[in-house]
Amino acid sequence: MDAETMVELDASLARSTARSHEIERAIAKDPSQFRILTGDRPTGNLHIGHWFGSLENRVRLADAGVETFLIIADYQVITDRDGVGPIRDRVYSLVADYVAAGLDPEKVTIFTHSSVPALNQLMLPFLSLVTDAELRRNPTVKSELDDTGERPMSGLMLTYPVHQTADILFCKANLVPVGKDQLPHIEQARIVARRFDERYGRADATHPVFPEPDALLSRSGTILGLDGTKMSKSKGNTIELGMTADETAKLLKRAVTDSNRHITYEPAERPEVSNLVSLAALCLDRDPVDVAAEIGDGGGGGLKKLVTEAVNERFAGHRARRAEIVADPGQLQAILADGNRRANDIADATLDEVRAAMRMEY
Amino acid sequence: MDAETMVELDASLARSTARSHEIERAIAKDPSQFRILTGDRPTGNLHIGHWFGSLENRVRLADAGVETFLIIADYQVITDRDGVGPIRDRVYSLVADYVAAGLDPEKVTIFTHSSVPALNQLMLPFLSLVTDAELRRNPTVKSELDDTGERPMSGLMLTYPVHQTADILFCKANLVPVGKDQLPHIEQARIVARRFDERYGRADATHPVFPEPDALLSRSGTILGLDGTKMSKSKGNTIELGMTADETAKLLKRAVTDSNRHITYEPAERPEVSNLVSLAALCLDRDPVDVAAEIGDGGGGGLKKLVTEAVNERFAGHRARRAEIVADPGQLQAILADGNRRANDIADATLDEVRAAMRMEY
Repeated sequence: MDAETMVELDASLARSTARSHEIERAIAKDPSQFRILTGDRPTGNLHIGHWFGSLENRVRLADAGVETFLIIADYQVITDRDGVGPIRDRVYSLVADYVAAGLDPEKVTIFTHSSVPALNQLMLPFLSLVTDAELRRNPTVKSELDDTGERPMSGLMLTYPVHQTADILFCKANLVPVGKDQLPHIEQARIVARRFDERYGRADATHPVFPEPDALLSRSGTILGLDGTKMSKSKGNTIELGMTADETAKLLKRAVTDSNRHITYEPAERPEVSNLVSLAALCLDRDPVDVAAEIGDGGGGGLKKLVTEAVNERFAGHRARRAEIVADPGQLQAILADGNRRANDIADATLDEVRAAMRMEY
Repeated sequence: MDAETMVELDASLARSTARSHEIERAIAKDPSQFRILTGDRPTGNLHIGHWFGSLENRVRLADAGVETFLIIADYQVITDRDGVGPIRDRVYSLVADYVAAGLDPEKVTIFTHSSVPALNQLMLPFLSLVTDAELRRNPTVKSELDDTGERPMSGLMLTYPVHQTADILFCKANLVPVGKDQLPHIEQARIVARRFDERYGRADATHPVFPEPDALLSRSGTILGLDGTKMSKSKGNTIELGMTADETAKLLKRAVTDSNRHITYEPAERPEVSNLVSLAALCLDRDPVDVAAEIGDGGGGGLKKLVTEAVNERFAGHRARRAEIVADPGQLQAILADGNRRANDIADATLDEVRAAMRMEY
């Protein structure tokens, strides 16, 4: 990336950050003007990284009164892998964590991507509004294209920015909580919304069919895995939300620290130790420097003891609720069926508007 | 194209031709084992080129008892143009020609692409089975890519081979009447059907979700436009099926001939004259050499008179039926609504099987 591009990106990030602050103030004033689309790929169970990176924020926004659509993006599982894996279990595991975390399925529409045909149909008109070159410039697609050692890129990965646009626009979401890496996806959705209006027109002359969604930047501070590397299920370095207190303790015993018994919070110099301090601080809602000072010369053992207690205490309620929900598969199914029904109603209504705008009403 | 590729293509064409003959014999024996998918892009009114190139053959096959699905591919209109044009009029014009030509809407399912969400959803799993490189190698896509002077290629054009696969497979068609240029599209559908079975498995263990469709090669002999160039609506060199006898006569008066008053059938030496002879011969179901001999020294005038009479006589019945149908828009709407309902029922059932095979049943 050349210097000019970096300067542009910085400026764009600054604008997005300022816009996000503005939106947060608007939510505090009147949450009813917003609709959020957010979600997960069902590739495994949610872990503490998801909690602090997105789930907690979703609960906060829903509690603030923002209408929320939660997509379980099952078709995204096959963008870059050959099989679907134990897909049903993973989907219901997500539903269980959402509900246990406090997302009320009466208010939050939880649905699976593959269950909403009218959403998926939007792919076709939307693909007509995006060029081959734009698809290839998308950062997610581009990094796949550059990664020549891997499997050849599938058509589903190539068109990924367009499914994501359909996911956002089908329910006319105007707000998408994202990290800064995903800003280009939101920009793609804005472009498609705008071009649809310019090229195909409107169902109702007073407003475009699709709003241009805004990104709501979420706090960045990523937690690493217990070995100090990127959190990843395949490395077994994550604490899943659904783990028991014992499993958590066992996992944290194996966490990497260092030989200096005096615990400090110095992310650059002592990444593994600082990561554990950070995790405890997040769970305790405290400052990591204070947490480190409290442990002082307690060493790796003291640190791990504190983190284990902090995690297990923080998630005790979530885990208890989760276990209750999981014990009743019928309820999980009913929650998802209801969400899918609501998502289909909205998608059908949107598709009707799309047909009217495109004069494809027969 | 190198010599080796051409030899391969010739061999492949020979195989497809032999296979088509085999299928024709099988149809004569038991038409119930086949289901055809065929259709048109609603970019204008059907003309005599469509009649002799496809419509007549569709009527023959439907009359022989082969179950037929007729897709009006409205989304294909926007693969390579910015607007949809007078889409409703064009769609109903197609329906009118189909019915007037003798396709019984009770037996033939006439439907619009954009009206069948479950068909369109198939795009997503199918895109996972095709690579970026394969899409770009498809001859239709490749020629668009090579045509650098034009507008940039849209994502909808890039994924065109996959929509076409979805169009064919959603109703489990096992037969697609095509010209030889379209053989690669049928091959793409076969590949997707096979890969779906290999990768995602089955809803019913005894058979794959999708059959591998066969191409049924239709007779090639193309009719040119009245100016001796490729038939094209924008050039005004075609006789539309719905034109009146007077309009036909006027148009044929302007047809290009040459200065030799002795009419012969010599396609290579006298393309314009031979094209008109050909057209008369097709309408009269006669040999073009005989037709030319009959005109003899009648010159361009005699030729045009004969062609005009032949066309007007051949299509008098079609035009009368068409005018009757067009006079009743309510009936046209009812025909399409009924076809769309039937297409949706079949698409929904197929999507259910796809979900079962992919274990995306919640």
